[in-house]
Amino acid sequence: MPYPASVRFDAGSLSIPEGVSVTWEGARTPMLERAVGRFRARLAALGGIPAPAADAPAATQLHIHVGADPAYLSVAAREGYRLTVDVHGIDLAADGPAGVLHGLATLLQLVRAGPQSPAIAFARIDDAPRFAWRGVMIDVARHFMTIETLKRQIDAMELVKLDVLHLHLSDGQGFRVESRVFPRLTTVASHGQYYTQEQIRDLVAYAADRGIRIVPEFDTPGHAFALLLAYPDLASQPPAPGDRHQVNVAAIDPTLEGSYRFLRRLYGEMGHLFPDPYFHAGGDEVSATQWTKNAAIAAFMRQNGFATPQQLQAAFTARIQKILHDQGKIMMGWDEITEAAIPGNVVIEAWRGSKFIASATRAGHPVVVSAGYYLDLLQPASEHYLVDPLDPQANGLTPELAEKLRPKLGAMVDALKLDPSATMSPAQDRLVMGGEAPLWTEVVTDEMLDARLWPRSAAIAERFWSPASVRDVPDMYRRLAVVQDELCVTGLQAQANRYRMAARLSPGNAGPVLTLADATSPIRHYGHNHPVSHGPNGPVVQQMNTPSDIAAPDSAGAERFNDLARRYVAGDRSVRPVLEAMLTRWRDNDAAFQAVSAGRPILEDARPASQELKALAQAGLDALAGRNGKDWRAVTGALLARQDQAVAASANMVVSHTVAQPPADLLQDITPGVRTLAGLD
Amino acid sequence: MPYPASVRFDAGSLSIPEGVSVTWEGARTPMLERAVGRFRARLAALGGIPAPAADAPAATQLHIHVGADPAYLSVAAREGYRLTVDVHGIDLAADGPAGVLHGLATLLQLVRAGPQSPAIAFARIDDAPRFAWRGVMIDVARHFMTIETLKRQIDAMELVKLDVLHLHLSDGQGFRVESRVFPRLTTVASHGQYYTQEQIRDLVAYAADRGIRIVPEFDTPGHAFALLLAYPDLASQPPAPGDRHQVNVAAIDPTLEGSYRFLRRLYGEMGHLFPDPYFHAGGDEVSATQWTKNAAIAAFMRQNGFATPQQLQAAFTARIQKILHDQGKIMMGWDEITEAAIPGNVVIEAWRGSKFIASATRAGHPVVVSAGYYLDLLQPASEHYLVDPLDPQANGLTPELAEKLRPKLGAMVDALKLDPSATMSPAQDRLVMGGEAPLWTEVVTDEMLDARLWPRSAAIAERFWSPASVRDVPDMYRRLAVVQDELCVTGLQAQANRYRMAARLSPGNAGPVLTLADATSPIRHYGHNHPVSHGPNGPVVQQMNTPSDIAAPDSAGAERFNDLARRYVAGDRSVRPVLEAMLTRWRDNDAAFQAVSAGRPILEDARPASQELKALAQAGLDALAGRNGKDWRAVTGALLARQDQAVAASANMVVSHTVAQPPADLLQDITPGVRTLAGLD
Repeated sequence: MPYPASVRFDAGSLSIPEGVSVTWEGARTPMLERAVGRFRARLAALGGIPAPAADAPAATQLHIHVGADPAYLSVAAREGYRLTVDVHGIDLAADGPAGVLHGLATLLQLVRAGPQSPAIAFARIDDAPRFAWRGVMIDVARHFMTIETLKRQIDAMELVKLDVLHLHLSDGQGFRVESRVFPRLTTVASHGQYYTQEQIRDLVAYAADRGIRIVPEFDTPGHAFALLLAYPDLASQPPAPGDRHQVNVAAIDPTLEGSYRFLRRLYGEMGHLFPDPYFHAGGDEVSATQWTKNAAIAAFMRQNGFATPQQLQAAFTARIQKILHDQGKIMMGWDEITEAAIPGNVVIEAWRGSKFIASATRAGHPVVVSAGYYLDLLQPASEHYLVDPLDPQANGLTPELAEKLRPKLGAMVDALKLDPSATMSPAQDRLVMGGEAPLWTEVVTDEMLDARLWPRSAAIAERFWSPASVRDVPDMYRRLAVVQDELCVTGLQAQANRYRMAARLSPGNAGPVLTLADATSPIRHYGHNHPVSHGPNGPVVQQMNTPSDIAAPDSAGAERFNDLARRYVAGDRSVRPVLEAMLTRWRDNDAAFQAVSAGRPILEDARPASQELKALAQAGLDALAGRNGKDWRAVTGALLARQDQAVAASANMVVSHTVAQPPADLLQDITPGVRTLAGLD
Repeated sequence: MPYPASVRFDAGSLSIPEGVSVTWEGARTPMLERAVGRFRARLAALGGIPAPAADAPAATQLHIHVGADPAYLSVAAREGYRLTVDVHGIDLAADGPAGVLHGLATLLQLVRAGPQSPAIAFARIDDAPRFAWRGVMIDVARHFMTIETLKRQIDAMELVKLDVLHLHLSDGQGFRVESRVFPRLTTVASHGQYYTQEQIRDLVAYAADRGIRIVPEFDTPGHAFALLLAYPDLASQPPAPGDRHQVNVAAIDPTLEGSYRFLRRLYGEMGHLFPDPYFHAGGDEVSATQWTKNAAIAAFMRQNGFATPQQLQAAFTARIQKILHDQGKIMMGWDEITEAAIPGNVVIEAWRGSKFIASATRAGHPVVVSAGYYLDLLQPASEHYLVDPLDPQANGLTPELAEKLRPKLGAMVDALKLDPSATMSPAQDRLVMGGEAPLWTEVVTDEMLDARLWPRSAAIAERFWSPASVRDVPDMYRRLAVVQDELCVTGLQAQANRYRMAARLSPGNAGPVLTLADATSPIRHYGHNHPVSHGPNGPVVQQMNTPSDIAAPDSAGAERFNDLARRYVAGDRSVRPVLEAMLTRWRDNDAAFQAVSAGRPILEDARPASQELKALAQAGLDALAGRNGKDWRAVTGALLARQDQAVAASANMVVSHTVAQPPADLLQDITPGVRTLAGLD
């Protein structure tokens, strides 16, 4: 995963008791030698053998032929490779360094631990990506992420052939990079949580070694509260520390020449730190009232003929584009910037809906698609997996749903509504460089990042890499569980941190919490993002410390159960003992959960969710045992309907907090399998 | 844990939504400020709140009063502290810096996560250790451990108030510290796995910050194979690379003046790197034939009146002691060195049996006790926990068992035999400085270290710290499970690495492997240390990659089950649903285990162990259901007898590999509870 463009498996495997010896042909470089060092260490970790010394000889040969590629680490990089594993050894022929990295990543997925030696399955693979831009975006402003945590994500990205890490480095909550030109960005706007310039250089080099470009984003004119706390002269409305409304909406004043002088120097400094030619300047979610309620700005608009704030933003965008162009950068921005005329070479990140893919490419803009891949919506992998970056109808509101939501959302609906007339010409398709999966971190802490980003990013990586025809969801889930474990074996902390979070809630007996979390997932579409409430001692900020913060959007155990239930109903009776064991365990977990939750308020809140799981599991066991009379069907029907309601409430694009949420923000992931067993599909 | 000398809990707790602000009185130092920084980070991790910035104010006050202590980081350090948590805040009064570290460690064990804020239980504690020397020994020669891994152990040691890390830095398999005086120790004897001098200095400082002294051991004259590969002129028998017999027995030639010149310079170099006054020179397990079969050495012995190799070793020891004394060091050695006259100030590490506590202190030697605390024997925590460092009858062979084993072990038996006449005077008691838990790493890799060292070291830490009267085993186990989770929450990788090892064996579905491992433990007393066998492609070295390498010597789940079974039989029927759920899960796990093990030889080998677990769990369920007829009793009796046999075989001091071992080297830890339920106690 991602599934190769072409693959043939042969019977047999190659035993590698001591790892591999490498022979080279072509453009061998120190970077590639480091890549082979990582490969060896990962091979040892996956195969369960001691990590070999760098120069230790081994009987198995890995022959690498690599072509030179001046475009390495750019959107034009040569990424193709051909891999052969047979009785003679391993042969990897790559068009360029990126192809070597990709071939080694594929090779690791063929490794299997064995009693005396790991082995690599015989295979012939000919592979290249569908899209050049395969990214994830991490928001390090809402919650700061340590360098160590980011490096773990970069390691995992390398293993699933993602090649762009877009870092959202500034927002209302903080400005996260040391600035020497504007030191108050560090002393005031970072709240003590920032990366030093040395750390950034190190991180960029670390990513480059793994074939990954870092694209920085410094969001303007909106989302600028932290920056404006440090430099209030540039603000459209005076920022006050702790103003929770302003945190999300404060915007730079685009009528001041000082704003441009500031951004020119700031972007100049940051552009040197981040060598990639693409520079993301944000441009999303500018609040009109920031400008219209400022008398001087309003006067400026009248005097200069800007009828709408959108037009004013377009002028701002054009000047920013010019600044970045002068600095040798290609500007990138969120799709709002297309609302007025902007230079054609600006790269548009289509986020509000897939219809912007068509509109932006029609205007000649290169496009990176993030609509459909928002990981912070906490949707399961399958939903992102089926969104194709070239389909302008893939993600957004149907006209019917849009009209239903209009009373609640007002004009915002129009941006979210699909445009049924949007189609793509081949020339437009070619302008789509790829996609990005953004993870905004309002409710994601450093210790949660691994489990929120993965394994879903691996499924999305397959969408960006593999042929469009690869879209079998059950098959994807079977492979995804394996890839997730392989990532954990080679260093990801997803599983480790989930255990830590559960152990914190129930030290000495984390099992019942984990069993509940493994069968559930958090409510989706921002239903879990709770507004700040006001307690007796001041504002109460959401703590990310509950079972729904441990539960993952995909439950591997529940997926397996749902799959087995389908097989059982289709006639495969051999799976019955495993189905019974799974259901029994979920049913029985409630007694243990009730015990460990006593006197622990966070867990007491989740007791109703544990009881729902017990009831669902019992319904499944009853169905298997044929105890399905009329009363049972009524009770089970009501139980399943409750779960459907919770999912439906969670599935609206924006969940209203007046709608009843499920207990402890948890959705019951075994519901589909129980419905199947109950014959109520 | 370790349980304080005196503690009183009061009703209520102190809420700490933002952590604590610290006020100081007395000898505040940068070291103590760093300690408070660690405390805050750990408080945040355990309490589930964001780690606060260093200078962030908080409503809760922690007032620290600390006395000056010139003896900090020595055996004379002032370690006592008094801790009060009440409605006014937290007050910590410490006799010296060590007392502050201990008080903060205690405080962390009082933290509990809560929905809006963590809380610390109200308490009054007056505490000081029973012994000054509370150590663990890690063998980094057999398997090299990374600095990062060692630092994790040091962090955990701080939290359970251990204060000595004894590093076994040289042995047959390698010499692990960079030497600039003798570079071949690095280039030849380390096989590429060593600590640079800079890393050692950093590690020593890291430990010192945490109140932990590092005592280095460079073992001579035996266990010197790696050293002698680099400097063969000093060898008693010519060393040959790959000679598997010599690896364990090669010894330095004690008749050469060059040996003493070499060791004087080497110990001088190493003594500077490790500032602690104690220096461990080994002295264990010298093989007589290394010397007697060397004609020159034999002649030397005759000429100089050394009747036995022991006498020759005594002379060697006396010269080494003189060398170390001249360098300002206090020599420490394993108890073999007491077999001939040695200077009285040499510290003896009593390892072969507790009788050496009495004999060495009778001769006036300070003693550190490791007999009874050998973690590599893979005994459960309870067995170490009940060994008292002042009891010369606590650990060793009874005279009866010794005579039974004499045909197998020969004269070695005499060293292992308890001396029933050994008693201790108060003066002798005072010579016992404390104890050490050694972990030799023949079958412990870097990724296994956390789970082999912990949680058992925490139980042993309690033995070394708490009053001798604290010895309630079920109570210890209840607290041990909590402490283990707290260590994992604050950074230990025990649980994380167990998951990784299981995921490697069964990627995508590690659950069945973990469930089996959680109910079993590895065979004890070196039964799991397999001799090197000869395969078709050369020697086959043991891979530490099986369920028995994942299973821990203590199974928290099985302990809980055994405890509940006792409560059930004693009349507490409320525990029945939990007992049934546990047994059902273990029984049902076999179907899943059989499925995931198909085609995976390592797991296929463990199928019989999974079936034994299933049979035991079924027997327990039958007993609960009253299905206990005559046939059932016969079958269950035989099943339990098989488990007893496996434990008994494993309990002999030295397991003969001709004795039948249990399947996959796994002992079934739920056996006692099943026996209790079956009424066959």
